[in-house]
Amino acid sequence: MADPNTLSAVDAAAAIRNGRLTSERLVESCLARIEAREERVGAWAYVNPDQALTEARARDKEEPRGLLHGIPVGIKDVFDTADMPTEYGTPIYKDHQPAWDAACVAQVREAGGVILGKTVSTEFATRYPGKTRNPHNLDHTPGGSSSGSGAAVADCMVPLAFGTQTTGSQIRPASYCGIVGYKPSFNTIDRAGLMPLSQSLDTIGIHGRTVQDTALVVAALADYRVSDSAWEIAGTPKIAFCRTPVWAKAEASTQALVEETASRLGGQGATVSDLALPADFDDLTEAHKTISEFEFCRALSYERTHFPDKISSLLMERLESGLRWTRADYENSWQKVARCAELMTHVFAGCDVILAPSVPGEAPRFEEGTGSPIFSQIWAPLGLPCVSVPVLEGPTGLPIGIQLLAPLGEDARALTHANWVHQQLGDWT
Amino acid sequence: MADPNTLSAVDAAAAIRNGRLTSERLVESCLARIEAREERVGAWAYVNPDQALTEARARDKEEPRGLLHGIPVGIKDVFDTADMPTEYGTPIYKDHQPAWDAACVAQVREAGGVILGKTVSTEFATRYPGKTRNPHNLDHTPGGSSSGSGAAVADCMVPLAFGTQTTGSQIRPASYCGIVGYKPSFNTIDRAGLMPLSQSLDTIGIHGRTVQDTALVVAALADYRVSDSAWEIAGTPKIAFCRTPVWAKAEASTQALVEETASRLGGQGATVSDLALPADFDDLTEAHKTISEFEFCRALSYERTHFPDKISSLLMERLESGLRWTRADYENSWQKVARCAELMTHVFAGCDVILAPSVPGEAPRFEEGTGSPIFSQIWAPLGLPCVSVPVLEGPTGLPIGIQLLAPLGEDARALTHANWVHQQLGDWT
Repeated sequence: MADPNTLSAVDAAAAIRNGRLTSERLVESCLARIEAREERVGAWAYVNPDQALTEARARDKEEPRGLLHGIPVGIKDVFDTADMPTEYGTPIYKDHQPAWDAACVAQVREAGGVILGKTVSTEFATRYPGKTRNPHNLDHTPGGSSSGSGAAVADCMVPLAFGTQTTGSQIRPASYCGIVGYKPSFNTIDRAGLMPLSQSLDTIGIHGRTVQDTALVVAALADYRVSDSAWEIAGTPKIAFCRTPVWAKAEASTQALVEETASRLGGQGATVSDLALPADFDDLTEAHKTISEFEFCRALSYERTHFPDKISSLLMERLESGLRWTRADYENSWQKVARCAELMTHVFAGCDVILAPSVPGEAPRFEEGTGSPIFSQIWAPLGLPCVSVPVLEGPTGLPIGIQLLAPLGEDARALTHANWVHQQLGDWT
Repeated sequence: MADPNTLSAVDAAAAIRNGRLTSERLVESCLARIEAREERVGAWAYVNPDQALTEARARDKEEPRGLLHGIPVGIKDVFDTADMPTEYGTPIYKDHQPAWDAACVAQVREAGGVILGKTVSTEFATRYPGKTRNPHNLDHTPGGSSSGSGAAVADCMVPLAFGTQTTGSQIRPASYCGIVGYKPSFNTIDRAGLMPLSQSLDTIGIHGRTVQDTALVVAALADYRVSDSAWEIAGTPKIAFCRTPVWAKAEASTQALVEETASRLGGQGATVSDLALPADFDDLTEAHKTISEFEFCRALSYERTHFPDKISSLLMERLESGLRWTRADYENSWQKVARCAELMTHVFAGCDVILAPSVPGEAPRFEEGTGSPIFSQIWAPLGLPCVSVPVLEGPTGLPIGIQLLAPLGEDARALTHANWVHQQLGDWT
């Protein structure tokens, strides 16, 4: 058997069920990897090895609880945990200890999972970075805001980790770190105990190294199950290649790689068509900015009014911008989103899924920030399910993801087609 | 001037602005009323008179901060407060002290309001009652789940108080306590720091003694402003009287009172038509039950798995029912809601607002529970704005409300028409 920490969650869960692996050995293996690499990668805000091993040993003595039995999971440090501090990526809440587990944390435990620790988030899941480095090149960012979760999964410190996406915080780190990032349809995983940032956009997602691993989590938590047979796509995958209205923001090398990928998939049995979005979609980036800023400055009212000196100027500017938007600006933005939502039936009429860039290019250097969410921002207010798969290698050898999107509520389509693309093209390395 | 505690928030705010009243005197007056009545009514989970007076005096020394300057506000004990304990109506969180203010609490303070204290909630804002009694007859329930907020406003202990509505928790206590209850369109007031119960249904609302008082809060917090001129309805109010598919659940005396009210409004200058909802609406009560139970049992995962002995059997049964619903049940329920949402343009085609019962009848006796939310449940998953006005007197002399509903996002229509109805018919007493 490979080192347990490198196993997929699906394989590890099967090995634990069959008695070929214990949760204790799997957690030990993950902790050893953390011990070896954490000083450089900085993926974790909190790990207590004894606590994790105690949990793992307890699971090994029990009948299987559920789909995640014995599997270690990393939790972005914006989710409350009753037995670990939770700091939300801000010095305002240094050493804060919640009184409860977030719903998704409690559900992981109910399904038999072991909480390995808390992963680094940017400040309040926005853009000011934490300490985490890209495990493939420590001089580069892992992306944000789900930085630690992306780096930890990529570096085989843990097979699964929760992230969140309000703009591009799941897809971007997945792309930069060379892993799978799955943002489910809006409201799929319950948000109780997640620090709120934008009540109409915040979405809980999952980082994993395979698409099927990420699907395991929504099966366990949201009773959203992709049947075994659905993973074998019947007939020809119908993929619409969408350059998006922000195509010019992609680096030329990325444009070439994505173009080539679309062609290759055509040669590997898919029907690949070109999709130009209706002109209404040109407004979505600005609409998302208005909606999110209007909501951020309200959700963070307490912190904004009590601790302005402990908020980064990067975030404070966005909060102040949010206070300048009027109710009419906010409502007009939602009307623009509603028009695009009405067009989705038309957009998906000729295809199963949309193929689009995940990011403009490779991970920027660490000091340049967490990268641009622009290729997620245009989709974000629509709430569509999207899955980024790490199939491209950029000019300096770092990974670049591409994302598959499906209509709202059709997560199985996004997942099974992303899995097909991942299998056809393989990992970027 | 009347006793300050009996003033509307709008009048009190104007008096404070004009220097005819101080926040200190207003808060003292509210505290005196609490001192006199609280032992019998039991509206409050926590009040610290010194703290409230200190806040009020600080406001009196400042330039006006905003629309709520100097106005005391009650906070249902499901909203976090950094300087007051928050127990969510459950012994699980006895003496729990949050690290922050909920967004709406911080926003009230930012707008100059004074947090008077925390009002009693039922268990986790569901059905198991707290200690609060109906101030008009102590042998009866104030309704739930926003029990303390309803009773405190009705008893002139505070002019405004926050509630929440997931099923009928705002409209029902407003109706039973003889006050105005305003549930805004879904997602109008930011939910950060509100204990989550159902992420797709939980809505923050406001109890007040006048419609304009409740509107003041969404102006301050959500920049949702009803212009002065809009309160004078231009032309003939077009009201559709909707008995709803659950009309038979209303008591005969309530049916007669509501019928008579619809006729009277016709005589007072409104056009009143009869509205029969399409048959699709017959499914909404069951759809709401499925959606809410599916979400409740997930949102309360931590409490359900760690403290089952501290959860009432009334709630535990609903959580267990929630675990039995499948993803398909949940999605089918949303499809039923979506069909009705598509019909709303048709439903509102011939009218400005819908007039419908708020409750089946007067407040039940205390030992019978918090009453039936059935007349809110059919509307709840649509997210419509609704305002209950206390214009009917039931057979034993207790108040009964009727509610005005408008299309999603058209809160001004619901508010201005509710205000018109309230002015035409006057309070029930």
